[in-house]
Amino acid sequence: MVESSKTEKDKFIPIARPDLPDMGDIKEDIETILKSGMITNYEFVRRFEKKIAEFLNVKYAACVSSGTSALMLAAKALDLKGEVIVPSFTFSATAHALVWCGLKPIFVDAERDTFNIDIEKVKEAITPRTSAIVPVHVFGNPCKIDELEKLSKENNLKLLFDSAHAFGTSFNGKKVGGFGDAEIFSLTPTKVLTAAEGGVVTTNNRETYEQVVLDREYGKQPNYDCKTIGISARMGEFNAILGIHNLAKLDENIKRRKKLYDFYKSELEDVKGISFQKINSSAHCSIKDFAIIIDKNLFGIDRDELAEALTEEKIGWRKYFYPPLHRETAYGNMNNRGDALPNTNFISDNILNLPFFTALKTNDIVRICNVIKKLQH
Amino acid sequence: MVESSKTEKDKFIPIARPDLPDMGDIKEDIETILKSGMITNYEFVRRFEKKIAEFLNVKYAACVSSGTSALMLAAKALDLKGEVIVPSFTFSATAHALVWCGLKPIFVDAERDTFNIDIEKVKEAITPRTSAIVPVHVFGNPCKIDELEKLSKENNLKLLFDSAHAFGTSFNGKKVGGFGDAEIFSLTPTKVLTAAEGGVVTTNNRETYEQVVLDREYGKQPNYDCKTIGISARMGEFNAILGIHNLAKLDENIKRRKKLYDFYKSELEDVKGISFQKINSSAHCSIKDFAIIIDKNLFGIDRDELAEALTEEKIGWRKYFYPPLHRETAYGNMNNRGDALPNTNFISDNILNLPFFTALKTNDIVRICNVIKKLQH
Repeated sequence: MVESSKTEKDKFIPIARPDLPDMGDIKEDIETILKSGMITNYEFVRRFEKKIAEFLNVKYAACVSSGTSALMLAAKALDLKGEVIVPSFTFSATAHALVWCGLKPIFVDAERDTFNIDIEKVKEAITPRTSAIVPVHVFGNPCKIDELEKLSKENNLKLLFDSAHAFGTSFNGKKVGGFGDAEIFSLTPTKVLTAAEGGVVTTNNRETYEQVVLDREYGKQPNYDCKTIGISARMGEFNAILGIHNLAKLDENIKRRKKLYDFYKSELEDVKGISFQKINSSAHCSIKDFAIIIDKNLFGIDRDELAEALTEEKIGWRKYFYPPLHRETAYGNMNNRGDALPNTNFISDNILNLPFFTALKTNDIVRICNVIKKLQH
Repeated sequence: MVESSKTEKDKFIPIARPDLPDMGDIKEDIETILKSGMITNYEFVRRFEKKIAEFLNVKYAACVSSGTSALMLAAKALDLKGEVIVPSFTFSATAHALVWCGLKPIFVDAERDTFNIDIEKVKEAITPRTSAIVPVHVFGNPCKIDELEKLSKENNLKLLFDSAHAFGTSFNGKKVGGFGDAEIFSLTPTKVLTAAEGGVVTTNNRETYEQVVLDREYGKQPNYDCKTIGISARMGEFNAILGIHNLAKLDENIKRRKKLYDFYKSELEDVKGISFQKINSSAHCSIKDFAIIIDKNLFGIDRDELAEALTEEKIGWRKYFYPPLHRETAYGNMNNRGDALPNTNFISDNILNLPFFTALKTNDIVRICNVIKKLQH
């Protein structure tokens, strides 16, 4: 495909764009649900759950309405109480879901290189009130899962992975999904695997799974007597149709993302003042995002100035995660540990996410990187 | 359409079936969202919200992921605290949503004839800890809205209508949606208006609306700083496409439901031991359900025996709402006022919902009613 440079220059490059089927790929399935009238939490959702469990090599997968509800349901199923240790460098939903479950998120610092939770800081944050650790695989880069499993066992804590970003990521040759007591995934449009909206709880524990399945539909037993106070978190059949289609293409899409990621890095690695997230060496990362850290002293302008310049050039960006949770208004009075989280503050204040999605073209990456290179001085 | 009686007799009649478009009606819209990549909470959702507000003649409508999340978001936006008065004769989500918001539902009795909340009992349940009344328009039959508005004003209580069942219902010539401080609707497949999954918060109060809009997406402000601890409750674009289509047909569908309802009643009104919900005389009811109350002494068999007999004849049914909330396991220890709710106990123990949906045929109703008439002795 050849595009004139004029067209290319004028075209806005979004920060993300979902992988979606063509109408022809899913028309028959949509007709099936419209004709049958079974349009929510039915056979396509069951099929999607089966395929997810197979793909991740985990015993149980429960599809729900969102990653946030997945986390609420998993926290409830694991009967968490009191304090839960989470990174501050994560999306707000990680902590929000816990608060809705009556839990107190305790924010700890990140590793400066991997952006993931710092296990030494986790150790320091454990108190008699701690019931669980909820680590996050930031941008799909897995945490030191083995060390977290060891630590949680030693301290008799539950371990619930917020794998919202990490569908398709492996650690030590094993796909995330079956680690800890449970894991949750998000399927929103910015994710490597999307179902428009949706979430998944995965676990190898039958009781946990059954509790999630009960609670995703009000806690309602077959005789309509609610055993628990659940929520309304069914996944619709249309969402499952999208998800099934996208899962079939996922391996191919992840390969493409790896290629784009390597190309991006090769274009920028010699630029002074730009550094990257360090991917865990035990990992095969499905790569949700491409982020750079700007060192103003070496690069010449700061992160915010770079973002403004990219906007001028019709290039999308995101400051992600900025602000970090411990500095959000919603958490400002609850858990303000600003000075205790220097790495989180550093990453959050200097990070910029660049356009990254499967359908991104290498010549778009060249255009983006050329703009960045010209700004360095 | 002529069907052989054999085919007809062998065919299972479900309790409900959603009104859905044909593929041809929505194909173009689905192609639009697949091509644009904008598949959640975007232009179709905005259009659906606008059309809902116009249809209900209310200033603001916010589409969300479910009726339950609508109620959680509305209760949070209205800043409810402490105790909230609700009927026990309702679906579990009415109380569940309040509990997730840290509120204590106080269950009060129903009127024996309308199945709706008994206003005298509401008065008795008001304490200094009461912050709101959440009445329910059971099966679409509106409560005594004027009296509830008067009572809530006199006692400085918020009034939040659970109108999950009542889209299209009017009271004193005015559509429900703009009464009280806010109202919520559910759009699940059993509702008069469905979007597969979904909910709506409607209100004439700008602040309430803006709070719901903020909280349905994590409480996240445009600069990504969360002002509040919101939830993840976006409506997908596919759901809005379904909803827009169905809303355009709603008046026609409600007319059809009224005709079916009258026909059902005319078939059963002379059967000894069967009585019906009394529709509010100030109402135009959009009729979500058709329910009968079985008096065993006059009918000859009880509700449970009738249900079993209908199953034998391949006729769907639902005991709805059974058990009532104050007798559910989830609420058994929290709020057990069993003896204080005699009407609720009576209705719940003797009610049976019969198949009722827009596409139901009159000859199906004849078949159902003939089975019932033969059982009476």
